[in-house]
Amino acid sequence: MFVCVVCALASPMNAVSESLLGFDAEQETAQRGLEANFDEQLSADDLRAWMQHLSAQPHHVGSAYGKQNAEYLQGLFRSWGYETEIERYDILLPVPEQLELTLLEPRRFGATLEERTLEEDASTGRRDDLLPPYNAYSVDGDVTAELVFVNYGTPEDYELLARYGVSVEGKIVIVKYGRTFRGIKPKVAAEHGAIGTIIYSDPTDDGYARGDVYPKGGFKNDSGVQRGSVMDITRYAGDPLTPFEPSKKGVERLSRDEADVLAPIPTLPISYADALPLLESLEGPVAPAAWRGALPITYHIGPGPAKVRLTLKFDWRTVPAYNVIARMKGSKYPDEWILRGNHHDAWNHGARDPISGLITVLAEAKAIGQLAKQGHRPGRTLVFAAWDAEEQGLIGSSEWVEDHREQLDKHGVVYINTDLNGRGFLYLGGSPTLEVLYNGIMADVIDPETGLSVADRQRARMQVTGNDKVRKEATRKNLRLRPLGSGSDFTPFLQHLGVASANSGFGGEGGGGSYHTLYDTYEHYTRFHDPEFAYGVTLAKVNGRALLRFANADVLPFEFNAFAADMKKAVEELEKFADDMRAETVRVNGLLEDGRFTASLDPTRALQPPEAKVAVPHFNFAPLQNALGGLDGAAAAFETARGEGSPAGSTLRSLNKLLYTSERLLTREHGLPGRPWYRHHIYAPGFYTGYGAKTFPGVREAIEQRRFHEVDEQIVIVADILEVFAARLVEATQLLSPSTATQ
Amino acid sequence: MFVCVVCALASPMNAVSESLLGFDAEQETAQRGLEANFDEQLSADDLRAWMQHLSAQPHHVGSAYGKQNAEYLQGLFRSWGYETEIERYDILLPVPEQLELTLLEPRRFGATLEERTLEEDASTGRRDDLLPPYNAYSVDGDVTAELVFVNYGTPEDYELLARYGVSVEGKIVIVKYGRTFRGIKPKVAAEHGAIGTIIYSDPTDDGYARGDVYPKGGFKNDSGVQRGSVMDITRYAGDPLTPFEPSKKGVERLSRDEADVLAPIPTLPISYADALPLLESLEGPVAPAAWRGALPITYHIGPGPAKVRLTLKFDWRTVPAYNVIARMKGSKYPDEWILRGNHHDAWNHGARDPISGLITVLAEAKAIGQLAKQGHRPGRTLVFAAWDAEEQGLIGSSEWVEDHREQLDKHGVVYINTDLNGRGFLYLGGSPTLEVLYNGIMADVIDPETGLSVADRQRARMQVTGNDKVRKEATRKNLRLRPLGSGSDFTPFLQHLGVASANSGFGGEGGGGSYHTLYDTYEHYTRFHDPEFAYGVTLAKVNGRALLRFANADVLPFEFNAFAADMKKAVEELEKFADDMRAETVRVNGLLEDGRFTASLDPTRALQPPEAKVAVPHFNFAPLQNALGGLDGAAAAFETARGEGSPAGSTLRSLNKLLYTSERLLTREHGLPGRPWYRHHIYAPGFYTGYGAKTFPGVREAIEQRRFHEVDEQIVIVADILEVFAARLVEATQLLSPSTATQ
Repeated sequence: MFVCVVCALASPMNAVSESLLGFDAEQETAQRGLEANFDEQLSADDLRAWMQHLSAQPHHVGSAYGKQNAEYLQGLFRSWGYETEIERYDILLPVPEQLELTLLEPRRFGATLEERTLEEDASTGRRDDLLPPYNAYSVDGDVTAELVFVNYGTPEDYELLARYGVSVEGKIVIVKYGRTFRGIKPKVAAEHGAIGTIIYSDPTDDGYARGDVYPKGGFKNDSGVQRGSVMDITRYAGDPLTPFEPSKKGVERLSRDEADVLAPIPTLPISYADALPLLESLEGPVAPAAWRGALPITYHIGPGPAKVRLTLKFDWRTVPAYNVIARMKGSKYPDEWILRGNHHDAWNHGARDPISGLITVLAEAKAIGQLAKQGHRPGRTLVFAAWDAEEQGLIGSSEWVEDHREQLDKHGVVYINTDLNGRGFLYLGGSPTLEVLYNGIMADVIDPETGLSVADRQRARMQVTGNDKVRKEATRKNLRLRPLGSGSDFTPFLQHLGVASANSGFGGEGGGGSYHTLYDTYEHYTRFHDPEFAYGVTLAKVNGRALLRFANADVLPFEFNAFAADMKKAVEELEKFADDMRAETVRVNGLLEDGRFTASLDPTRALQPPEAKVAVPHFNFAPLQNALGGLDGAAAAFETARGEGSPAGSTLRSLNKLLYTSERLLTREHGLPGRPWYRHHIYAPGFYTGYGAKTFPGVREAIEQRRFHEVDEQIVIVADILEVFAARLVEATQLLSPSTATQ
Repeated sequence: MFVCVVCALASPMNAVSESLLGFDAEQETAQRGLEANFDEQLSADDLRAWMQHLSAQPHHVGSAYGKQNAEYLQGLFRSWGYETEIERYDILLPVPEQLELTLLEPRRFGATLEERTLEEDASTGRRDDLLPPYNAYSVDGDVTAELVFVNYGTPEDYELLARYGVSVEGKIVIVKYGRTFRGIKPKVAAEHGAIGTIIYSDPTDDGYARGDVYPKGGFKNDSGVQRGSVMDITRYAGDPLTPFEPSKKGVERLSRDEADVLAPIPTLPISYADALPLLESLEGPVAPAAWRGALPITYHIGPGPAKVRLTLKFDWRTVPAYNVIARMKGSKYPDEWILRGNHHDAWNHGARDPISGLITVLAEAKAIGQLAKQGHRPGRTLVFAAWDAEEQGLIGSSEWVEDHREQLDKHGVVYINTDLNGRGFLYLGGSPTLEVLYNGIMADVIDPETGLSVADRQRARMQVTGNDKVRKEATRKNLRLRPLGSGSDFTPFLQHLGVASANSGFGGEGGGGSYHTLYDTYEHYTRFHDPEFAYGVTLAKVNGRALLRFANADVLPFEFNAFAADMKKAVEELEKFADDMRAETVRVNGLLEDGRFTASLDPTRALQPPEAKVAVPHFNFAPLQNALGGLDGAAAAFETARGEGSPAGSTLRSLNKLLYTSERLLTREHGLPGRPWYRHHIYAPGFYTGYGAKTFPGVREAIEQRRFHEVDEQIVIVADILEVFAARLVEATQLLSPSTATQ
């Protein structure tokens, strides 16, 4: 059967974008005309030229080319009519002086720690100012110990390790990249007593087991090493020495010893070529099936006989980070700021990370500058930002947010972030209040490969490849945005300050492997990720619409039924999580008491039964359930009232302020337990995942980490937050429609 | 928490065996005494000595040592008081004259086709009469073509291959061992137009990815090759030239061309060392994730540029197969035969396959011989068999069954088979009428590693490692026996003749890798599989009890409620299968019609949407449902009546004959569609699985293979069979209890 795209276009798959939230019919016509005009300004050739320039040399924070790029970016923004400035922060940056890893026993092998220059990729020969593969914010150290293989190094991996009778106390762990943010790996290893961490990229995750390796294909070859920060961004992001404060002259700085975000033990990333001799020298129990990678060996856990020496010495410099900020003052509501950012620093040439995202910001800024020149200056103030030092720990953005906290608190409407981009499907995370806005956009923007709307292509994939749950989600009127964890510059805006945020990028068809390696080059990007910059243009259409709709809508296009629905789903999932954990604990403890684990295990092998666990009590979810009821009603009332027309003048301004500061109400000054910088109580990066989001993190992590005594208290905090949020919606409804709103 | 085995023994896990089916209280006491006496006769030292002798040299059918072993076995049986004979059949055996495999392009590589001799294992140096690695019953051939990688070579794999636009027409396929019986692989390849088959063992399945390789560990090293027959045993088993008839002098034989069970295209097994250069020379689409093995390459599908020449020439000999048959005439019911067998031929030394199973037969026979000498001759006739030529296609057993069809039809009560054995858990398949018998035995026999009953250890594992379905099965009063497919000598008894059968062996803790390689040696077996022969003794206890209970029970210990329950479950599963297939067809066709597949696929890659499929109609399951109702009632009535006492004399003999010939009623003279030798309509080896069983094969395969027009007709056949079976139970109930039985 032949299925053509034209047939597909005639099918019921094709959704029609609904009327634009915040615009009346006449305004909508004008806005849609403006967006068509915006699209016409976008040029793939621009994107290509900018990428070529920006990724020509390595340009990490503190590098000469990084500074040049900042100035180049400033020049571009200025040429398009923006007020620009470079805001500088002086931040801690460890630069390697000595990186050595030697296998001492059972045979000697010195890790090369080097990435090959490739004839096929000229960029890989341009190595001025190149930082070698390393993990920034590892402590200095010189440690010698037996190795232990710990899979991805999650808490669950250590739990299973204990069942093998293997301790990492006093050992060096070797751990695979993946599953968690890399900074979690030394943190968890150190919690279990390890004295060093070696992180490697197993070919099962982004090497030959996934596809052909570079330069034949896009995946990681045996010399590629993923660099990256191991700062514990789950505690706070930004300069490690200046939490809560901008790292400017005169600010008091912590000593390095006081900064609890540094990786507590020496940590170094290596290639799979360097990992192979280490892993094949391990003995001890054979690793469980789920731990095994794609190297041609039997994976053993250890400890030893493999014994390694790891020597790391850094020059702990203070270097300038240059954020490029470009503003266009709003014609109608200049005090309401729509923020748009992407970082500009890279680990190496950084064609994909971050230039593929940054060039979409430039495209949007240039187009909006041209619209402004044509007389279509946006109604609200736009702030474009190209952040520095994201790679080290979201530092440029975090310092800027800490620096401009009061202004942002007052003026910050929304922050729209990007980072990586490429061919494929839209990965879209964000505050649930942005769900309707982005679904409208996804229905309007056309996917360049299929001619379908971005939304329809997304739904098609969910229906074709998803499990039952995903298929069901695909039939929702609006696709949900993914909850935001961390890993890019939205974190300080959303989670520290409470500015509603979105993060997006296309991907899924380019493959991985170049991330944070020498091979993240223009050559690699244009062969494997977005050869024609078609997805660069498409991403600019997506976020350009978000900017323009936010800039010009009279009533800001936040939508609250989606928020209420998401909170309801999150509470259901939380209760189910607790119930499942309770049932599983009862089940496993029962099997243990009856000796069934012992009975089922091979007595000649190391694996032992798990430890019995404390029973999971029942928690009082009633406050949350009660809050949900109020929230649901308040959201529905607000959305109904919104449909009946909008106010003007100062009432409109008051209404909009109530709306855009509503996200602030999801924060609390005291922050999350043990990590006060994270003040958002609905979404946070998981303390043991790093990038992955936790919903209701105070409650969920108390359950997950079996700190059951904290749970009810955290439930009350979240319930209070949702009640305050509901009250805000009631207040906003009164401004929209004073007669119908009740209190 | 420390969980000791003693605590476990005190737990509710410990089931107590119920009263023995077919014995009254007094008889049961005697029988249990007899079984204790039997256990005392068993000696691990005997097992070890027999294995050492029998596996000292390669002993395939037609070999000098194979003949010696047959005579040695005959001598043992005779020494224990059995009437013995060696029954000879003259069978077709292709012996390699030329085996060559050369990679011609893009580089030249000659496959070694050799297994390394190991210093650590003296047996691997004893190679007199050793057959090289090959697939018996491949046709001769000399073919040159491009290679295509086809995963495990199932019909589903070819369906996916077609979505990549890759055809195997005129190509040579390279296929992984596993998932299906190896004979299925060339059959399916030829159905799709391939002209040659190379089968290799990927390290992901039984090599380094599973555990350390031989000699360090038990898994397959890079030179190990799994030999094996590629005869299509799903059509018929036994000598390819004499289906339905014993291959004795004077029997008419087919020409080789007429025998449709030969692999239709040249087929050769190779090691993963030989496979690596071939696979890494393939280009074309990257293989889908589920197809990739553990070799350190990116798996590609092809076709080409790898091009190979495969040259196979065999000497098509006729060789003698020697079945060793040993009888002990029953003291009470000499016309009722309890059959017990295991093959004696091997591909090489065959310590595990088959000697580990054969020695348990010997142990049982010796012990029963000793009991007989003590005056406890079994009530029914015991027939022990050591089959030859099992490896080539269950030939020794099949020829014997065809030879003695009439006697077996009249006298054959039950056939109890074993093959492989080792440490771990009891793998037990069989006719559902044996479920209660074997569950009683599993409750009585103690697992040597844990001190728990075999049943309790089995349930523990199901509860600890099983999914929800398995955990639920673990809580059943009796554990179900697995349905029997094929792959060992029970096939002619059960599926050709309708003699109720069981097949059992311990395993799961020794690992794989030596199967059909040079490394299946005494050294390997006693390091990895059962060093103390404790599980050999345990398996003898299991099947020895089965023999003794069958030999001595007045009313034969078949139980029919289990049969009725199994049929009910099988019908439910069949209906669910059809419903799921119907729903999935609707779903996928809908996605195709709406263009969603096209929308979700990467247009730069080869993978295309699947073909739309014909809708699955609703079938008339009513005849089966009606038959189930009658069966359920008839079984319950019989089992109730049995509890009220048993008849004697000729009535008892009539009753027992009704019972043991009831399995015959599950066969039909016409056999299954397209394979008349397979006459059992409840269980058969899947036409495209080979070892794996299909329940209601006529119905199920018609649905699976989308021959929907056949389904209702096949349902009626099975429903009739179940009705006739139910009528038999009514008849038997009348003999038990003439006053209460109705009909």
